[in-house]
Amino acid sequence: MTIQELTPQIRQKKSYLCVGLDSDIDKIPKHLLSEADPVFEFNKQIIDATLDFSVSYKINTAFYESRGLKGWESLEKTIRYIPNTHFTIADAKRGDIGNTSSQYAKAFFEELNFDAVTVAPYMGADSVKPFLEYQNKCTIVLGLTSNTGAKDFELLQTGNERLYEKVLRTVVEWGNPNNLMFVIGATQAEEFTNIRRILPDHYFLVPGVGFQGGSLKDISEKAMNGNVGILVNVSRAIIFAGETENFAAEASAIAQQYQQEMSSYL
Amino acid sequence: MTIQELTPQIRQKKSYLCVGLDSDIDKIPKHLLSEADPVFEFNKQIIDATLDFSVSYKINTAFYESRGLKGWESLEKTIRYIPNTHFTIADAKRGDIGNTSSQYAKAFFEELNFDAVTVAPYMGADSVKPFLEYQNKCTIVLGLTSNTGAKDFELLQTGNERLYEKVLRTVVEWGNPNNLMFVIGATQAEEFTNIRRILPDHYFLVPGVGFQGGSLKDISEKAMNGNVGILVNVSRAIIFAGETENFAAEASAIAQQYQQEMSSYL
Repeated sequence: MTIQELTPQIRQKKSYLCVGLDSDIDKIPKHLLSEADPVFEFNKQIIDATLDFSVSYKINTAFYESRGLKGWESLEKTIRYIPNTHFTIADAKRGDIGNTSSQYAKAFFEELNFDAVTVAPYMGADSVKPFLEYQNKCTIVLGLTSNTGAKDFELLQTGNERLYEKVLRTVVEWGNPNNLMFVIGATQAEEFTNIRRILPDHYFLVPGVGFQGGSLKDISEKAMNGNVGILVNVSRAIIFAGETENFAAEASAIAQQYQQEMSSYL
Repeated sequence: MTIQELTPQIRQKKSYLCVGLDSDIDKIPKHLLSEADPVFEFNKQIIDATLDFSVSYKINTAFYESRGLKGWESLEKTIRYIPNTHFTIADAKRGDIGNTSSQYAKAFFEELNFDAVTVAPYMGADSVKPFLEYQNKCTIVLGLTSNTGAKDFELLQTGNERLYEKVLRTVVEWGNPNNLMFVIGATQAEEFTNIRRILPDHYFLVPGVGFQGGSLKDISEKAMNGNVGILVNVSRAIIFAGETENFAAEASAIAQQYQQEMSSYL
């Protein structure tokens, strides 16, 4: 699915919810551990239970890589299981010199066929552009992240702007609203009006609602544009809503709550 | 192997050469493609042929991820094949919010048992510190990279210093010379004297010699410290030195040339 196809999906489902599959094997319900692939079984049930209330799934690669080959297998099965009605994001935060970034783009866009991948901007143009060369794929560059460490470098003053603003203004020239999004953390609500002014047309992928404490109301009011323009990710608050055999129904109920709140802002 | 164990190895072998296993399946000799695992077979022969002239191997994860599950298998077999006389680096450039970085640290330090991993600094303290919590492991943070894109953000003026200098001065407080190195590209030789002044005691991992054009002489003269303090990576110029069945011997010859030049600077 492309960014252009995402907006009608959001309007139809009255939801801009992305469910984050940070599927830590130490946190999934214990009864699943007897399955051949516990993480995939967990993801399958979470996906089935949240499909109606979400428009996107985000797979956080770290939680799969930490289990080695078995984890990579769970990741491959999961991305193939997600139906093409949903926008798929590899939350991988990759970025390297040009020929290496090309290999990462190949990994996520060709080998795994994700619709989008998150990319770190520190190394500059040749680390980001190989991702943008893919037609009908989406590159999501880190702008202002949701974590406390954002203050260390992202919020540094560089001349008459902060580093993250310089990153937004620079990277935006390398793509267009149809192949480029930015990560803007929900915990940074006080910056959202400013960021929307810098980037009136682009989608933002917004993590940090739920467990990290960002306000869905705040960001929806400040960051939405005429094209919706925000995709809000919730991971732990949905997928780990329940710990028993009833976990999928509990995840579904929380996803529905988010969807209903979102429908009131649309 | 720890950083403390690396220096005696360098002195004994008169080499601070790291061989980069950027083992692109499209570039390895064609006769290997009939092997069950062509990339592992290639790596095995390259490792055997360069072991005597190097002290370290760096696996660039992108070239493995781009082949999906098969690639991850080649990576696992390769890291297990490298003998513990050599310092092993996962060139992965990871970095995310705290709980996610912890998973990446687990992936590379526990699951794969690398000695070191490269980490991107953009997201700040909580994205880097989970790696530094591992005893006897090494975190290698991007400082000033070898690519042209380094000028976009790393060389930006922030107050009275450039961004990469701010990164070096900030990150250095989070670790010590025994668990923390920095990536400094060989193509940035004019900055090396300044960087060594900022960080007198730390090791630098220096890519960019060989194919990217950095001068081994320049960086050795400007960046070495009393503890050696530099580990120079060469990837393509060694591993793709030959294209025929004789490729390993050709790689060996080039590795030896680098080792001999290095011995003259030690």
